[in-house]
Amino acid sequence: MYELNETHDAGLRSWVESANAPDTDFPLQNLPFAVYRRQGSHEPLRGGVAIGDQILDLNAAATAGAFEGEAAVAARVAGGETLNALMALGPRAWSALRLALSRALREGFDTQKTLSACLLPQAQAEYGVPASIGDYTDFYTSVHHATNIGRQFRPDNPLLPNYKWVPIGYHGRVSSIGVSGQAFPRPMGQTLPPGALQPEFGPCKRLDYELEIGIFVGPGNVAGEPIPIAEAEAHVFGVCLLNDWSARDIQAWEYQPLGPFLSKNFATTLSPWIVTLEALAPFRMPFSRPADDPQPLPYLDASSDRARGALDLQLEVHLQSQNMREQGLAPKRLTHTSYRHAYWTISQLVAHHTINGCNLKPGDLFGSGTLSGPTLDQAGALIELTKGGKEPIVMPDGQMRTYLEDGDTVILKGWCERPGVRRIGFGECRGTVLQPKTL
Amino acid sequence: MYELNETHDAGLRSWVESANAPDTDFPLQNLPFAVYRRQGSHEPLRGGVAIGDQILDLNAAATAGAFEGEAAVAARVAGGETLNALMALGPRAWSALRLALSRALREGFDTQKTLSACLLPQAQAEYGVPASIGDYTDFYTSVHHATNIGRQFRPDNPLLPNYKWVPIGYHGRVSSIGVSGQAFPRPMGQTLPPGALQPEFGPCKRLDYELEIGIFVGPGNVAGEPIPIAEAEAHVFGVCLLNDWSARDIQAWEYQPLGPFLSKNFATTLSPWIVTLEALAPFRMPFSRPADDPQPLPYLDASSDRARGALDLQLEVHLQSQNMREQGLAPKRLTHTSYRHAYWTISQLVAHHTINGCNLKPGDLFGSGTLSGPTLDQAGALIELTKGGKEPIVMPDGQMRTYLEDGDTVILKGWCERPGVRRIGFGECRGTVLQPKTL
Repeated sequence: MYELNETHDAGLRSWVESANAPDTDFPLQNLPFAVYRRQGSHEPLRGGVAIGDQILDLNAAATAGAFEGEAAVAARVAGGETLNALMALGPRAWSALRLALSRALREGFDTQKTLSACLLPQAQAEYGVPASIGDYTDFYTSVHHATNIGRQFRPDNPLLPNYKWVPIGYHGRVSSIGVSGQAFPRPMGQTLPPGALQPEFGPCKRLDYELEIGIFVGPGNVAGEPIPIAEAEAHVFGVCLLNDWSARDIQAWEYQPLGPFLSKNFATTLSPWIVTLEALAPFRMPFSRPADDPQPLPYLDASSDRARGALDLQLEVHLQSQNMREQGLAPKRLTHTSYRHAYWTISQLVAHHTINGCNLKPGDLFGSGTLSGPTLDQAGALIELTKGGKEPIVMPDGQMRTYLEDGDTVILKGWCERPGVRRIGFGECRGTVLQPKTL
Repeated sequence: MYELNETHDAGLRSWVESANAPDTDFPLQNLPFAVYRRQGSHEPLRGGVAIGDQILDLNAAATAGAFEGEAAVAARVAGGETLNALMALGPRAWSALRLALSRALREGFDTQKTLSACLLPQAQAEYGVPASIGDYTDFYTSVHHATNIGRQFRPDNPLLPNYKWVPIGYHGRVSSIGVSGQAFPRPMGQTLPPGALQPEFGPCKRLDYELEIGIFVGPGNVAGEPIPIAEAEAHVFGVCLLNDWSARDIQAWEYQPLGPFLSKNFATTLSPWIVTLEALAPFRMPFSRPADDPQPLPYLDASSDRARGALDLQLEVHLQSQNMREQGLAPKRLTHTSYRHAYWTISQLVAHHTINGCNLKPGDLFGSGTLSGPTLDQAGALIELTKGGKEPIVMPDGQMRTYLEDGDTVILKGWCERPGVRRIGFGECRGTVLQPKTL
């Protein structure tokens, strides 16, 4: 949907010097949004934009007179405790604010003196969940993940017949969504040990992460009025990283017939920064299906989506155990994949979600589902990487991992890059497993 | 948890004369909460209590000096646009407000002149969804429903092995929850016609209702801190009626492996009035399992729950087609059952939901799941009553019904009664199916 414009120009430099470093996640071409406050303070959260290693306070910048017209309105509403009001404004306002920010932070513009006072170093900030999330929907867009997992739950029937027709999704839990840095006790629950006739109760033994992206909804629709696929991206504010923590043993026992519940709803972790679709425009790619696969039904098919529906977003999972932290060992990279392997596009998710009249609201969140690539080393969860716990991973300190242990920290990373374009980073999504708490 | 006290006394009469009628849903012993405004006005919604055919404005009554201490605080916070703040206060405040309301509305008390000005006839009111619902969880607490439905989806394996161990639940959609009077277009979607190899797209052909109760959460818990079952009812504000509209053909095609999604999330309808657990105290009953069934695991078992965990709440479903409305024919009663047949208690739902550390918040909503009783005429959905559409129901105008037709209105009713106690009613939960809208 978004055309390339001056904000994508790789030659642009910022007067915030750290934004010009080649390896920064947050160059002038990115401009992602978060809510933040000074670390350890009791200030209200407020909306900000990342630039290099700094955060620009949007309301303060607007008050300082840095923006005009629609951009000024957008900056004002983005200065609140959540980004819902900005998300509700829609693409024209988002683009106006992006252009105004790009110009105001650009080297040589006469804004440096005014705006320098509106910056806080990211090292001094703490973040909040960026929106008041009305509903969270988790999809299942990786056919490789669905096949890998399906093989373990249903060896005879790994990929169900609906998979290639329906963008499978289900509703997830909002209350337990946290932001990078989240720590949670290992969940307790019922599981059916192999061969047992009765369940047992205790701490989860097969705790896993899931590498996903989060997608924040913009204006949304009135109940009963589906969003046509060709208009879907006008309802997507942006993208972040998402860890859908999963208790595999609880899931296996509880998930039939109504789907995952306690196996998923104890914690979900988001990266703080939402990268807009406009910033991601240079990394869109054609979307197509293998010729032998069913083609999407008309309500899931649009020429614009075929032309640019995919997104080459590089994704990694890193794992650091408590022992590794204590020994000063760096996290181990477990996976490197890309969102371009997804079987369903973001527009298809929006069109499908609303086709029955279901209404989406500003700040609603989609999870992509675990993003496993076509080969096993691109798998987005331990259940796949360790083949259901049968092939442990050797960690840098010599310890073995099948599933997560208490004290483990999982770090998701994401970025887009291609020649001739500035690299766009997503920052980190970090979460830690604590010891279980008993009743 | 709640002891019988003076507010339950069957002899109490109100100065609001309509509250003394024997068949009223809202005698002085009930005192349920809703948010409302004058019909057709643009006034903000505000909290009120039903008394006979009137509504008492809680904030106005507090302003008029009708309450003191904790009750005054509770009435004030209940006067806002949602009841979340009242739900957050917990049982001591709820009881204090109930007692103060019971006294202030009682015949002979010196409050009639002051409070008469705070009344609005229910016939002049419109209602809102009573809370800002953070998360909605739908359970599956009727073993009869689970067996009836399971037989149709999985003839060889109707009741899955986890059913008698796990209070099965899943997360539902918040955005499309509406209040009695809700009307929605028949959902469009993918279905797999019998014998077909490929799905087709079109209006749902097997649209159904589900008779449920809704349960509103009170204070709730901090993430990571489960609510012990013996304390569960302190976290339950009250109960309403809930219609979980269901598109059976869409459900059958989409529900594996992650559960219902578009088949359920287009609309959910609540009755406006929330009846508190304290009002329901006289109708609690012992809860027990058939001796051959597994007994609840310790985290789902409490002596208080065995003593009084069940609730004898009478429930009915009525159906009126557009043609019946035009001919002036009364709705046809399809079902009469009771919530006492539920396989899992409200306390068990709370304890299970939080056992993994999942946090509940004030205003969160549980659905009980379809409440079918032990015999088929007590079934809470058309899919059961018509045996999957094979045995149509004859309507009073001679038309046949398998599933819902456009223009059909479904009305849920609920009440508690037993000798020596005033009847407590729930009012109505009414919703209407409109013609489908195409893209």
